[in-house]
Amino acid sequence: MITVYGYRASGNCHKVRLLLDQLGRPHRWVDVDSPAGATRSPAFLALNPNGKVPVLQREDGAVLVESNAMLVWLAEGTAFLPDDAWARAQAFSWLFFEQYSHDPDVAVARFIRGWTALDDARRSTLPGLQARGHVALQLMDGHLRTSPWFTGARYGIADIALSAYTAVAEEGGYDLTPYPALRDWLARVEATPAYHAMPAPPAEVVARFAHACRSSDD
Amino acid sequence: MITVYGYRASGNCHKVRLLLDQLGRPHRWVDVDSPAGATRSPAFLALNPNGKVPVLQREDGAVLVESNAMLVWLAEGTAFLPDDAWARAQAFSWLFFEQYSHDPDVAVARFIRGWTALDDARRSTLPGLQARGHVALQLMDGHLRTSPWFTGARYGIADIALSAYTAVAEEGGYDLTPYPALRDWLARVEATPAYHAMPAPPAEVVARFAHACRSSDD
Repeated sequence: MITVYGYRASGNCHKVRLLLDQLGRPHRWVDVDSPAGATRSPAFLALNPNGKVPVLQREDGAVLVESNAMLVWLAEGTAFLPDDAWARAQAFSWLFFEQYSHDPDVAVARFIRGWTALDDARRSTLPGLQARGHVALQLMDGHLRTSPWFTGARYGIADIALSAYTAVAEEGGYDLTPYPALRDWLARVEATPAYHAMPAPPAEVVARFAHACRSSDD
Repeated sequence: MITVYGYRASGNCHKVRLLLDQLGRPHRWVDVDSPAGATRSPAFLALNPNGKVPVLQREDGAVLVESNAMLVWLAEGTAFLPDDAWARAQAFSWLFFEQYSHDPDVAVARFIRGWTALDDARRSTLPGLQARGHVALQLMDGHLRTSPWFTGARYGIADIALSAYTAVAEEGGYDLTPYPALRDWLARVEATPAYHAMPAPPAEVVARFAHACRSSDD
């Protein structure tokens, strides 16, 4: 059986857990409190020198890092990744887009708002991050006006990867009202068999999200 | 025959051109002067709404974006991507690492030093970018102490992706002296059949690289 080391309120970790559950694939989950620094311990760095979750480990000890590489490996030969070469290429394209043009703005804005102190200097970068994040959300909305999914003709790993942080984009200060096709897609994703939402972060994180919302309303 | 739209002094574009040439695959190359804003024209945005090069287009007009997705599509079934599922997963892992943890620091530092004005505000971000970029280079060096390549047992697309900007990292202000395994790997990459280095950027860009070097020596 495989083991996944992860933090449940991280979108990159949730992606992997959701796919495993939607595949009905048994696995062992080990909670790693990455915001508390657990990914910087010598034991964890021996597992992943990049000091990040998630980490996937096979029973023989072999390790795979990078959430989207895990999605590809787990989905190969299943309905979550197309067989057709061109459809696969498009799914891979969205997976790379997610890591380069979506996560660094949509996910990082949520991290800064929820997991840093209210006077943290990184909060000054939020307007820039959010402006770029809206470009990514707009591109997704444009795609979804003519295609129901990001993984070829049906739901699959590019949808799992892109929805993980889009579903909680509001926690990063994003208003999804201007993106109706995106909101319809999120509803379709949430209606897929065995779907479950990412668990809520700890109470102090949720409190910071609320605080930040009030501030921007002032 | 496929067409690739690209800027030759961009590592992300060079990756695709190098693989095509190493595969001996005929293609049409269309130069796009992205630093001059050519990727923001309505015609280009119709091709790629994300306004980025490279763009790959099939003869029937179908388009693929994201350089690493192109590498995967082109390499499928060739010696540049392993057949074994776990070796493929590791190659994909490095491709995602390259886009998330290498390009945003190693490539972007080179862009800022070469393509922005000497008084551009983004230059203040260079020390932070370079600190993170060194983490990526150190991780690569660590991997290369026990493995000759990033694409399983032999040279392939993860090596092409990671070497594109590593080979010109010094233009981003990086000193590669502390990474002997990395430098040996770059030499092995450069010795592969049909390898060719990325063309030099325009003279004014090269002049900015030189200026920045002098400044940091002061």
